[in-house]
Amino acid sequence: MGHTFPGATAPFGMVQLSPQTNFEVMHNEDGSYNKITYEYCAGYQYRDSTILGFSHTNLSGTGHSDLGDFLVMPTTGKLTLDPLKTATGEKGFYSNFSHKNEEAEPGYYKVDLDDYKIKAELTASDRVGFHKYTFPKSDSAHIILDLVYNVYHHDNKNVWTFIRAENDSLVTGYRQTKGWARTKKVFFAMQFSKPFKSYGHKKYDKEVYDGFYRRFNQSENFPEMAGKDLRAYFNFNTEENEEIQLKFALSSVSTAGALKNLQAEISHWDFNKTKKETQKKWNKELSKIEVETITEENKITFYTAMYHSMLSPVLYEDVDGKYRGLDQNIHTSEGFTNYTVFSLWDTYRALHPLFNITQPTRNNDMIKSMLAHHDQSVHNMLPIWSHYANENWCMIGYHATSVIADAMAKNVDDFDKNRALLASVNTANVSYFDGLGDYINFKYVPDDKSHSSVSKTLELAYNDWCIAQMANHVNDENNEAIFLERSEYFNNVYDSKSGYMRPKLSNGEFRKDFDPMDTHGQGFIEGNAWNYGLYVPHQLDRMVQMMGGKENFSQHLDSLFTMEIDDKFIEKHEDITRDGIIGNYVHGNEPGHHIPYLYNWTGKPHKTQERVRMIMETMYGPTVDGLCGNDDAGQMSAWYIFSSLGFYPVTPGSSEYAIGSPLVKEAIVHLENGNKFKVSTKNQSKENVFVNSIIVNGEKYDSFMLDHSVISKGGEIVFEMSNEPNKLN
Amino acid sequence: MGHTFPGATAPFGMVQLSPQTNFEVMHNEDGSYNKITYEYCAGYQYRDSTILGFSHTNLSGTGHSDLGDFLVMPTTGKLTLDPLKTATGEKGFYSNFSHKNEEAEPGYYKVDLDDYKIKAELTASDRVGFHKYTFPKSDSAHIILDLVYNVYHHDNKNVWTFIRAENDSLVTGYRQTKGWARTKKVFFAMQFSKPFKSYGHKKYDKEVYDGFYRRFNQSENFPEMAGKDLRAYFNFNTEENEEIQLKFALSSVSTAGALKNLQAEISHWDFNKTKKETQKKWNKELSKIEVETITEENKITFYTAMYHSMLSPVLYEDVDGKYRGLDQNIHTSEGFTNYTVFSLWDTYRALHPLFNITQPTRNNDMIKSMLAHHDQSVHNMLPIWSHYANENWCMIGYHATSVIADAMAKNVDDFDKNRALLASVNTANVSYFDGLGDYINFKYVPDDKSHSSVSKTLELAYNDWCIAQMANHVNDENNEAIFLERSEYFNNVYDSKSGYMRPKLSNGEFRKDFDPMDTHGQGFIEGNAWNYGLYVPHQLDRMVQMMGGKENFSQHLDSLFTMEIDDKFIEKHEDITRDGIIGNYVHGNEPGHHIPYLYNWTGKPHKTQERVRMIMETMYGPTVDGLCGNDDAGQMSAWYIFSSLGFYPVTPGSSEYAIGSPLVKEAIVHLENGNKFKVSTKNQSKENVFVNSIIVNGEKYDSFMLDHSVISKGGEIVFEMSNEPNKLN
Repeated sequence: MGHTFPGATAPFGMVQLSPQTNFEVMHNEDGSYNKITYEYCAGYQYRDSTILGFSHTNLSGTGHSDLGDFLVMPTTGKLTLDPLKTATGEKGFYSNFSHKNEEAEPGYYKVDLDDYKIKAELTASDRVGFHKYTFPKSDSAHIILDLVYNVYHHDNKNVWTFIRAENDSLVTGYRQTKGWARTKKVFFAMQFSKPFKSYGHKKYDKEVYDGFYRRFNQSENFPEMAGKDLRAYFNFNTEENEEIQLKFALSSVSTAGALKNLQAEISHWDFNKTKKETQKKWNKELSKIEVETITEENKITFYTAMYHSMLSPVLYEDVDGKYRGLDQNIHTSEGFTNYTVFSLWDTYRALHPLFNITQPTRNNDMIKSMLAHHDQSVHNMLPIWSHYANENWCMIGYHATSVIADAMAKNVDDFDKNRALLASVNTANVSYFDGLGDYINFKYVPDDKSHSSVSKTLELAYNDWCIAQMANHVNDENNEAIFLERSEYFNNVYDSKSGYMRPKLSNGEFRKDFDPMDTHGQGFIEGNAWNYGLYVPHQLDRMVQMMGGKENFSQHLDSLFTMEIDDKFIEKHEDITRDGIIGNYVHGNEPGHHIPYLYNWTGKPHKTQERVRMIMETMYGPTVDGLCGNDDAGQMSAWYIFSSLGFYPVTPGSSEYAIGSPLVKEAIVHLENGNKFKVSTKNQSKENVFVNSIIVNGEKYDSFMLDHSVISKGGEIVFEMSNEPNKLN
Repeated sequence: MGHTFPGATAPFGMVQLSPQTNFEVMHNEDGSYNKITYEYCAGYQYRDSTILGFSHTNLSGTGHSDLGDFLVMPTTGKLTLDPLKTATGEKGFYSNFSHKNEEAEPGYYKVDLDDYKIKAELTASDRVGFHKYTFPKSDSAHIILDLVYNVYHHDNKNVWTFIRAENDSLVTGYRQTKGWARTKKVFFAMQFSKPFKSYGHKKYDKEVYDGFYRRFNQSENFPEMAGKDLRAYFNFNTEENEEIQLKFALSSVSTAGALKNLQAEISHWDFNKTKKETQKKWNKELSKIEVETITEENKITFYTAMYHSMLSPVLYEDVDGKYRGLDQNIHTSEGFTNYTVFSLWDTYRALHPLFNITQPTRNNDMIKSMLAHHDQSVHNMLPIWSHYANENWCMIGYHATSVIADAMAKNVDDFDKNRALLASVNTANVSYFDGLGDYINFKYVPDDKSHSSVSKTLELAYNDWCIAQMANHVNDENNEAIFLERSEYFNNVYDSKSGYMRPKLSNGEFRKDFDPMDTHGQGFIEGNAWNYGLYVPHQLDRMVQMMGGKENFSQHLDSLFTMEIDDKFIEKHEDITRDGIIGNYVHGNEPGHHIPYLYNWTGKPHKTQERVRMIMETMYGPTVDGLCGNDDAGQMSAWYIFSSLGFYPVTPGSSEYAIGSPLVKEAIVHLENGNKFKVSTKNQSKENVFVNSIIVNGEKYDSFMLDHSVISKGGEIVFEMSNEPNKLN
């Protein structure tokens, strides 16, 4: 349920080419079909034994489905274009497969398609998927290009598809869909290593208006195909073990752009060359943090997390810098590389802070991409959750401000800071945005006017603090004061009587029917008052004090981690599994990701140490069920990476990390500035989860906060570990 | 039934902004609606008394419907977005109007919308429609932008629509449709002279997936709207007689392109200034031929024809030269201006030949546009019937070759002639195109393999002769020989026994059940064996000889014009009215347009003279029913213009015109090269339809053919008219 995919991609690659499994799908009225929503956000489930084909775009770790563009499937024998079964009940084009014949490496995927005796191998450069299909001897080998297939939880989301057989080995086209991204267009160029002997397509449109096209036989060897729902096929004769290869390039701009990408990135037919080049890129990225771990399993888990942290945001521009903007016009990135897929409510927490260590240049490019998004936005807003030139408005708050403030705080700030502040201020003043007008007027989000009112109030107050930090950076005292004041609005939803953050009505009274255990309709989203109510990352000392002081708050945390909760509060569709829960703490969702570290603010850091080690050991693993919920576009993995190193960005937007308990024995972080930061441990073991003492650059360190500058300057932190808590620290 | 529109446009303008009348429309299952097909190809019928609004794209004179993009309607009072009636039975947003309050001039249209007391005035530059609405005093004045409205004969053709309210007076967006143009996209930018006080939209989609958009009130004052079927509105308070103006720019490229067009073409709010500039352009174009006529009616009819001859092809590029190509990629016109709407089966006959006299630069640009089309075509074909970056394949033959050959023959050839020949040869060898493969194999189109087999054989043979002429021009002897041979294939469908061109089967036998009077299923299209069977324009002497010699052929022509035909042979949907028929001669369709001139090849030119004068006087007029069938994108009008001047291009691709009987008293043709060609008459009158003698540049002229060089060099032709046929000539 991590919703990750095993396919081939370059780090942050535009093409993410991955198998689409299962044929339990939703049949739509019009004959199209979709995957069952939630479980197939990434197109793949390990329990499945069938493959429908290989798609070129996939989301990694999300809780909402989209993409799945351009399903390619090689088959042999009688041609069928129906994926599951034909009208006469015969088997569709899917194939059975077995995990024992499946291999996945960064940048490489291989599987045997048992029904056709075809070996399928995939690799990818940044913008081009590279397929290698090894066929048996056949006079009826086919490669199917299915433009109907989609990953989406609603009915058929196709708007229009368009295919041109440019010649006997090059096909171009595009698809427009109305999925999670409301107006999404993806263009492709598909080059075959061997000319097809014939080809054709079938149109599945409910309404077909072909006008004067009807005079021709369009369905066979007619090079121009268009309609809402098309499946095309290309026929070959093959010898035993003959390889047919495909290069499949994407573009957001045009088929001409896709063709340019194809030609620029892979000019040859040497599959292994591309695989090697992409794996070299992966090695470079993965080895930015070199770790020694207590167990081999920990090492695999660590690098799996590293891998998953680099599957989004993804590159979103052609080799010439052109890309489709939010306004649907074509723009050129000037002075930056454009990225898309910003799951910001998730990733501002630890993924973008991680990028400030491992990917500062990319993180700046991502910020510049967000600023371009703002400039193209008719709302004058930074992205909320954006992908493929669309804002999908998923989740709450405007956390792009956190990403920007965090980068500024850590001097990863090769962007126009005044422009970034202005974009943030614009965003924070769009009154029609999701409760924001009420938040500004009432100084909290009234629960009778907006769902998730408390969550929104807390997140917006934190975001406003982030804007104040930016304003401080650029000496804009006016905006600093305005947004510092707004950052205090968290106070307005605290009910000192019950001791909880609590939904408040527009009349100023707290809502009467209130269950702090319930996760639904209680003013919170993906959390409840017990856990989400602890979300004041920018004023943790004040929050602890407000909630009764260190001792009481520490006990609240103890209860949170140990209480038994009723199954009824565990919603199946809230992005977590039963395994992702410890007491009432939910690691599978993000609003609590900072909570295990909060003991540091109660004078009991050893409890943080114990908890974070427990979470690392129980919620992550090198197995198929190695994640306790969706990876959330890398946020879950980023939490693990930070925690493994012994510290975590509890307050993105500040330069400080909270110290926890490292899981690694040793780690060397290779920084882009050439410096190395080393994490060392003494007496590290599975049992020795407590930090007895800390030495930074040779000197005893007596704080449980660590400033980013310590890391960026390079140096060493040494944790002396013990199986006994050092209750003094 | 001319299918012309009265709205405002510049000559060959991209924007053709015209009222859409009638509310007899087709209701579709999904709640959308379309105009009843055939009668509303241009969106307007004079008999109607209601207006739905004003659309920015319209076809002039076609027999197939499409376009109608971006209907704008001003209203007052209670807002309704339903065009005809609301769900509760109230009146929709249409208005009654009266012809007495309607004015139409080139580049200007005005009407009073009686239901709202709004005066609507329209003008247009090349790429921008300019609306001026004079409102009554109202606190609920509205301007509706209807993106559901379409001119099309099938169900709702919308694929996707997209609107952004960029600010309080600028709106951008686009629409994609799947009509006659299968994959058509038009972008717009709409600038209001006055900020709207509020706005909103309604979505008529059967399936609405708004995802997280549902969290907001999208329908009011939310600046981003997208879906299959949208109608938007903009609200105003108005004072008595307050004018609200709109500038509405189009682009095939992007909303950014539309905005650029808007800003480049009309930088002010002076409606009259734009109107004057456009009318100045019209005066320049219309006065390229100055005529004196027998009657005032004749003059009005002549300039009406001139006007109609300049409504297509239309400009199809942005001010920066960018346009959407047939491959759906964005191209830039280098060294030419790009045009679209090529109704070539109609317009190759006389319209493009006319352009070689009045619009040589534009005709060269049109040829270059067709060559670009070829280069972008996945079929490597010149256009058949193309519009808006789509080939719709309407009608038969590949008559772009005629347009090119005619331009070459007349030295209107500022294009790469070898490239043009190559494109023509490519086109002539696409075996899957509409009977062409069989034509090449069998040397005729077998009737059992293809409908309209005789028409196709005759047209293809003529087209091949055109290619041979091109080859001759560039000294390509090989291609000249190949295509001269193919140009003889007309012989293969002539049945000397019956004396008709007749459908032949693939076994080499003529089809048995054959009725030369029938227009359907008899091997012809828009014609029958009697009239279409005379279509060998490149070998007229041989055709006459083949069909029994001059006397017999002349009698065939006499019969053709005088026979009585049964009503059952007059198909209502064949683009003509009963009035368009003389005997069995059909002027409302094109295949016979050369026939009245064929008497010249029988030694009886006086019969041509009599017939063409009769046709001019009876089939054309300065009245609402002034055309006897669709204007066919200007072809009907071009026939009139040529015939009025006294000559006609019977064989486009040769430099010669057949002389008829001028209707003008005098005409001065102002040529682009600075020369003037004058047509003078002596004793011209309604009755004096016969040409007694001809003097060219002072010398007696004894031929009934006129070479183009006589015209292009400048000079004078004098016709001495008489009421008695000069039977010697």
